Amino acid sequence: MDHIKVKAPATSANLGAGFDVFGMALQMPYDVIELVPHDSIEIEVDGVGGERIPTDPTKNTAGITASELGCTAKITVHKGIMPYSGLGSSAASAAGAAFGLNKLFDLGLSDNELIRAAVKGEEVVSGAAHADNVAPSLLGGFTIVHGEGVIRLDPPAIGIVAVLPDIFVETRVARSLLPQKVPLEDLVFNIGNASSLIIGMVTGNLELIGRSMQDRIIAPVRAKLIPGYDEVRESALRAGAAGVTISGSGPAMIAVCELGRRGQIADAMVDAFERNGIKSESFVTQPGGGAEIMGEHE
Amino acid sequence: MDHIKVKAPATSANLGAGFDVFGMALQMPYDVIELVPHDSIEIEVDGVGGERIPTDPTKNTAGITASELGCTAKITVHKGIMPYSGLGSSAASAAGAAFGLNKLFDLGLSDNELIRAAVKGEEVVSGAAHADNVAPSLLGGFTIVHGEGVIRLDPPAIGIVAVLPDIFVETRVARSLLPQKVPLEDLVFNIGNASSLIIGMVTGNLELIGRSMQDRIIAPVRAKLIPGYDEVRESALRAGAAGVTISGSGPAMIAVCELGRRGQIADAMVDAFERNGIKSESFVTQPGGGAEIMGEHE
Repeated sequence: MDHIKVKAPATSANLGAGFDVFGMALQMPYDVIELVPHDSIEIEVDGVGGERIPTDPTKNTAGITASELGCTAKITVHKGIMPYSGLGSSAASAAGAAFGLNKLFDLGLSDNELIRAAVKGEEVVSGAAHADNVAPSLLGGFTIVHGEGVIRLDPPAIGIVAVLPDIFVETRVARSLLPQKVPLEDLVFNIGNASSLIIGMVTGNLELIGRSMQDRIIAPVRAKLIPGYDEVRESALRAGAAGVTISGSGPAMIAVCELGRRGQIADAMVDAFERNGIKSESFVTQPGGGAEIMGEHE
Repeated sequence: MDHIKVKAPATSANLGAGFDVFGMALQMPYDVIELVPHDSIEIEVDGVGGERIPTDPTKNTAGITASELGCTAKITVHKGIMPYSGLGSSAASAAGAAFGLNKLFDLGLSDNELIRAAVKGEEVVSGAAHADNVAPSLLGGFTIVHGEGVIRLDPPAIGIVAVLPDIFVETRVARSLLPQKVPLEDLVFNIGNASSLIIGMVTGNLELIGRSMQDRIIAPVRAKLIPGYDEVRESALRAGAAGVTISGSGPAMIAVCELGRRGQIADAMVDAFERNGIKSESFVTQPGGGAEIMGEHE
């Protein structure tokens, strides 16, 4: 094979109570990554926010992933996911590169090995090695990253609205605000909600998923970086959302709802940001699959 | 009805990562509670460790539960569960009383209302109002207590060994040792393990349940109150246990395993305590049902 084109989806990590553990692949937006064998690792980036992404292979998540896998290739990343959005932009590029290189060079690597390589790239851009975006971007669906591996579930067919305000929050900064220690009672609250969210996923109970997205530890701190957060959240709930929280480290916000209510919730959230003087873009989507081949040439 | 006899099971709370959230009903041991309408609340207690339990209705979990429900009855508690064992002794008496009074006086209360009444009793003896033992003793199975209610799952048919060393740990003291705040990375570890434990319960994966019982926050602190804890734990794992941790606030320890390995694991744990100069009693059991009627008379 001398050319491969891969699609890797945006993902929403945390879902409230599952900080650094839960992640979900979204049907859209997504990155497209083209890979061609080459005598060195070379990166090109275009698409939304592409100018914000380093093309130095040692600073680019796709480049670092290639280096981890010991592959040299020319990697062209067509960004569909805005960088620094909280929608797993860097993870998608890394996951897509890992997935594509595995196919292109017939490496025969396991999902866990690919996740490990892609996480190395994440480490550089986010300052923390965590797989909560990489895993769902590779595997699709709803993923649980625990001490010893990754569990993948098929989420129910729920509606998802992601709204990205036009403000800049760097993942590193969002992480630096996090508390070093959390009160024991908040731990209990979050473990309860993380547990009930999983039961909601397993039983297809949208209401339970939505209620379980409440989080007392991370979202309240990160919400301070998003002007109008409370108003946007309440507008979404009034428009019929079952739950609303920050997507990953933000600034994107994510709402879960019935499929038929996505449009009205997206409008309500965009309007609420507008009232706070902030432009935003909405994605009306649903849980989706993982990285996949879009085209290849022998 | 003028007389009712109820059985209420021992329970194991936390299961490692699910502090104050997870609980599981055990087939044995159990309390038997007899209830007869009376012009005041009157408590009698006999059975194992009965002498340690106050019969003042305002200090006894069954008495407080009756008072919460507005019922006056003569309540005789035949203890099968040793008090201060970490096996939900006080919760079983409260759950059994709530369940029995609901039937005896035909109160028509919901499970959640019964749990709420029984938790009032727990509050007095343990110093914290939590339903992680009361819920499984009432409902049976594996329970998740979250912010807005209780979820019940049917656990798989796994083997359980509970070993109770002959040392005294008061629930209040065990709670007072707990950290007020926990490091964020331990939160992530515990949310990951709590999540994978639930997946283990849902899919019947014993190995995943066992591994997920690891906990970095509570068990390490409480283990200090149990001489020989590490040796007992390692002995159980060597004898084939999939996971071992402290049951509730201890000092009982609980191991999960294949049904056929329970005997050898019980022996290994009792022997390990013996080597540390501590006598212990083992219960070879499995997940069980909740409170139930053993007999009634019109």
